Amino acid sequence: MTIEKNEANKRLIEKINKVEENYTKNFSNTQKILLTTDGSITAILDVLYGKITLSTLEQHFDKADCEISKLINVNEGAQINYREVIMHKDDENLIYALSYIPLERLTDEICCDLVRADIPIGRILKNYRIESRREVNKIYIEKPNERLKDLFNTKEDMLAREYVIIHKNNVLMWIKEVFPVSKFTNI
Amino acid sequence: MTIEKNEANKRLIEKINKVEENYTKNFSNTQKILLTTDGSITAILDVLYGKITLSTLEQHFDKADCEISKLINVNEGAQINYREVIMHKDDENLIYALSYIPLERLTDEICCDLVRADIPIGRILKNYRIESRREVNKIYIEKPNERLKDLFNTKEDMLAREYVIIHKNNVLMWIKEVFPVSKFTNI
Repeated sequence: MTIEKNEANKRLIEKINKVEENYTKNFSNTQKILLTTDGSITAILDVLYGKITLSTLEQHFDKADCEISKLINVNEGAQINYREVIMHKDDENLIYALSYIPLERLTDEICCDLVRADIPIGRILKNYRIESRREVNKIYIEKPNERLKDLFNTKEDMLAREYVIIHKNNVLMWIKEVFPVSKFTNI
Repeated sequence: MTIEKNEANKRLIEKINKVEENYTKNFSNTQKILLTTDGSITAILDVLYGKITLSTLEQHFDKADCEISKLINVNEGAQINYREVIMHKDDENLIYALSYIPLERLTDEICCDLVRADIPIGRILKNYRIESRREVNKIYIEKPNERLKDLFNTKEDMLAREYVIIHKNNVLMWIKEVFPVSKFTNI
């Protein structure tokens, strides 16, 4: 019983170890922390770089297709907020993030912040004192698409994770975060 | 408005910068992350060291005195769980933690886990899918007491932080974490 209850983080460690084993490079501690933490990523980047900035690359309302509806546990066709952002320190792009957020679970004020301003989700949750928990579902390596190649000015492999922020026992936000494998290796 | 909303982590960065400025050494990134994160500390240590272990040094029920009652927002005399633990990897002690938890806000099952087993609080919250938020209140340097000197086998200064875990808009747990200033400087 005790052993089982102590295994809560084990799956996550195994995940990242497996990805690392199957790859040619070892990951840095900062990379591992960024990929596995259940805390705010912007808070960690703020500490590492001094206050970082978020720029919205794309934001629009959309209808959930079959795939998205499963990720965020809504009916197909439900309204979602689609957002792509880049977290950066001055000219250095740090982490790209894609999020799907079901509008039916958002208060009007949070919705306004998401749409109008370049505010990281971690800061929005903090500002509105939202009680939540985060579940990291996937950690993996992927090839960059054109947007990522362009943002990070590289063709190298990317480290990615997908997680959900749970609030009132349901998915409030689905988030994918991506950065190049050479990023955060010397910090 | 936007600027204000983006300041959520600023107070925390300023806090740690101030402590660092007034000290003779710079802090490592790992130290800064451990002192400021609103995520699980055990999850971060698990990643850095491989799965870490918690040993309970002291655990008993007690009545909240004046000071404790203010920290956890209960009436003086209310029943609390007092717990002192050490997180360690094999023989290496990593972080000491002291916690005050008001029994009136605990479910029976969480109370059982706290009392019976050496389970870190982050893992307990995860196991019971508790939605919460963390507020770091203080970050500071302190001189070690006898217990800390003994645990870490050093008389050097200690880095400490105090934070609360908020659940259902009230303090579920007050926690103080402490480690020597030379710990986590090379990891």
